[in-house]
Amino acid sequence: MDNISMSAERLEKKTTIDLRKKHIGPSCKIFFSQDPIKIVQAKGQYMYDEKGQRYLDCINNVAHVGHCHPDVVKAGAQQMGLLNTNSRFLHDNLVLYAQRLQATLPEQLSVCYFVNSGSEANDLALRLARQYTGHRDVITLENAYHGHVSSLIDISPYKFHQLSGAQLNPFVHVIAAFIAESLQSCGGQVIPPVGYFQQVAEHVHKAGGVFIADEVQVGFGRVGTNFWAFQLQGEDFVPDIVTMGKPIGNGHPMSCVVTTKEVAEAFMSSGMDYFNTFGGNPVSCAIGLAVLDVIVKEDLQGNAMRVGRYLANLLEKQKEKHALIGDVRGCGLFVGVELVRDRLKLTPATAEAQEVIYKLKEEHILLSADGPHRNVLKFKPPMCFTGEDADLVVEKIDRILTDLEEALGLKLPDTVNVENESKKRKRSTDENGRQQPNSLLHGRGSSQGVPQQSKHLKI
Amino acid sequence: MDNISMSAERLEKKTTIDLRKKHIGPSCKIFFSQDPIKIVQAKGQYMYDEKGQRYLDCINNVAHVGHCHPDVVKAGAQQMGLLNTNSRFLHDNLVLYAQRLQATLPEQLSVCYFVNSGSEANDLALRLARQYTGHRDVITLENAYHGHVSSLIDISPYKFHQLSGAQLNPFVHVIAAFIAESLQSCGGQVIPPVGYFQQVAEHVHKAGGVFIADEVQVGFGRVGTNFWAFQLQGEDFVPDIVTMGKPIGNGHPMSCVVTTKEVAEAFMSSGMDYFNTFGGNPVSCAIGLAVLDVIVKEDLQGNAMRVGRYLANLLEKQKEKHALIGDVRGCGLFVGVELVRDRLKLTPATAEAQEVIYKLKEEHILLSADGPHRNVLKFKPPMCFTGEDADLVVEKIDRILTDLEEALGLKLPDTVNVENESKKRKRSTDENGRQQPNSLLHGRGSSQGVPQQSKHLKI
Repeated sequence: MDNISMSAERLEKKTTIDLRKKHIGPSCKIFFSQDPIKIVQAKGQYMYDEKGQRYLDCINNVAHVGHCHPDVVKAGAQQMGLLNTNSRFLHDNLVLYAQRLQATLPEQLSVCYFVNSGSEANDLALRLARQYTGHRDVITLENAYHGHVSSLIDISPYKFHQLSGAQLNPFVHVIAAFIAESLQSCGGQVIPPVGYFQQVAEHVHKAGGVFIADEVQVGFGRVGTNFWAFQLQGEDFVPDIVTMGKPIGNGHPMSCVVTTKEVAEAFMSSGMDYFNTFGGNPVSCAIGLAVLDVIVKEDLQGNAMRVGRYLANLLEKQKEKHALIGDVRGCGLFVGVELVRDRLKLTPATAEAQEVIYKLKEEHILLSADGPHRNVLKFKPPMCFTGEDADLVVEKIDRILTDLEEALGLKLPDTVNVENESKKRKRSTDENGRQQPNSLLHGRGSSQGVPQQSKHLKI
Repeated sequence: MDNISMSAERLEKKTTIDLRKKHIGPSCKIFFSQDPIKIVQAKGQYMYDEKGQRYLDCINNVAHVGHCHPDVVKAGAQQMGLLNTNSRFLHDNLVLYAQRLQATLPEQLSVCYFVNSGSEANDLALRLARQYTGHRDVITLENAYHGHVSSLIDISPYKFHQLSGAQLNPFVHVIAAFIAESLQSCGGQVIPPVGYFQQVAEHVHKAGGVFIADEVQVGFGRVGTNFWAFQLQGEDFVPDIVTMGKPIGNGHPMSCVVTTKEVAEAFMSSGMDYFNTFGGNPVSCAIGLAVLDVIVKEDLQGNAMRVGRYLANLLEKQKEKHALIGDVRGCGLFVGVELVRDRLKLTPATAEAQEVIYKLKEEHILLSADGPHRNVLKFKPPMCFTGEDADLVVEKIDRILTDLEEALGLKLPDTVNVENESKKRKRSTDENGRQQPNSLLHGRGSSQGVPQQSKHLKI
């Protein structure tokens, strides 16, 4: 982009950092804390810093149809100038958007509640489930993350394991709900086997519970073959509640809960109204409609399928070449690369993953690592990501891994144990600035994300 | 407004209603459910329906600086076109906005957390309080409303009293926090006496708790004399945590929690990061900055003080004239008029309040009623509300009350008991469409909002 606007920077970078330290909660972490990036502009799959330096964005799944898509900006700006008010008045955008969303879902999922964030959506999903079933307890997955409000931290091991005195809820007997991301994201890009959700749903329904599919990270065509990730499980699978978020408004704060008439009526029968000040306002809905239009108009779901497959193939070839790659998994433009120090023991290569992230940053490519051991490279770029973008990032990863393996003395097929050598390495910080014990020093057992296929290596 | 855009209506009103019934959760109530209003455009303190009919808006405190203020729209549209991403990157809008907010607050309140709604803000405030104090329980006020997520319904009697099997938390012994709106809104526009918060804070601090001031409904200059409503308590009063919401973005989904360094550091020490996908994004912050600019540029706080006083004076004169008015109270453009059937017993005039609301709608004026008995007429208009607007709405209220009192046989100073006559009246619905037992039939004891002054009437 040639016309990068310098005027977007109003303060010296150092002043921005100082003010942030002074006025923003210290729990709010920044990427690359030792040398954070100041982004002033973005377009498509690219972000630009204050010097006009371009970064390839492989991580912002919120900017779903591409950063600052002109159709989405126009829809938002026009509606902002016309009307932005709450849903206690009739408005066409609200009902047209609900109708459009419904058309992408199984027929039973016909009732929408509009809220402002994935956290609000999942909190409401729990309230719906509890009212409908009359039960309170919830089954959640290991390493799950469903949001930042109190009720969701309770069911998000990804979060509550960060607490010193981790508080686990009592063992579950009678349940209100099973909640799972249709594909686990923060937990390490874990793909459930086909048919798994149907079996879970059967057990959950028998126990009097409902099935909540969390599509906050993975919905809206990202998986390529389907519009919703739960549809990967087969056409016969219908969750009782679906929650949506991040990509729904291409960055605009909005989200949605969709459920069946039965659940909605049970919720109504509690006698308590549901009102959300900003939820479903005309601007949010205009933006939501524009996002759906762009996905269709630009065939972004098809692009996610094609580019996603191409990227996965490139990465599979890297796996044949690099001992550090334990697994490549994903669907569409939601791809995880699990780095391991040892393909047999699956020792997480946490420090190496952080090194890859930092080296890629130097190459002006933004990628992150996640999972319980932060050793899974996580691709979830804007949906306009191209084959050339995939070529570029994989080429860079190839070089970084080659250097890393050389330094560590790791080889394929004759890998040597570098346990002792690694003790020289220092602690590192992850891309969020969190201190990570060096996994080369402190192996924390085998990875949670089980590779689909692992080669037995000579050690 | 002459150039009211008809193109904003895309569906017949009946179709909009039908689609809403089909696709929007039935718990999401609409104003005037029997004949809801379809609003397609708004400007300043006016809203326009699909036929171009103008309504005077006395209720939308979210459209704080006036509906669709051009400066706010421009700021939002420009930033949407440039960059909208999360706070893991450095951005000047975030820190400039935090700095501007801090300048309006006592020095100690220097650390901000940006979130998307008042509910998210109050939930985070509870988490901050709990982490800082190490305690869990909370003191809340009768009829309080602090938000719609699970953790807040627990502390919002206004909400949980709607449940059939109302669940009260166990009696409070050791507390983490006292939470109160600086002026109670949904609870019936209740104004705490000066010095009350200082005394509460002293007890709360002694018990190891913190004081949370909820400014979601009443902040940003609405009270006229001060920018924040808690400042009405005197310059010596500093809450430990302040939560903000509704008016902060003039309708854009955003909100904020501000606290002290000590509380922020304790929260940090839990080891759990805080990340909010949309919170503090550049668009939200650009809009927040524009709202602050407009408040200053157009002296809206001064306007709130002047027009608020003028409106309160007009209403006080109405009280001298109308037996139904039990109390007029408020600060700035946050004014409540409590309607009572009997000034001695303070019997809530719930049905009459609903009648006023419906009759005003026929006159194209939007007003609502709230409080535990829904008998308090609630003024919280956009801050550009004028003296002429006040004249108009009070003139209409005068006529409606005159007709009502004539029909009921209510008089000042010789009021007669109309208990028997009233039995002929049917049940009515409130402005949210909720069925209300006719208070003329079923008096539910005296009102919670105690009038400052009440005349003893002959009965």
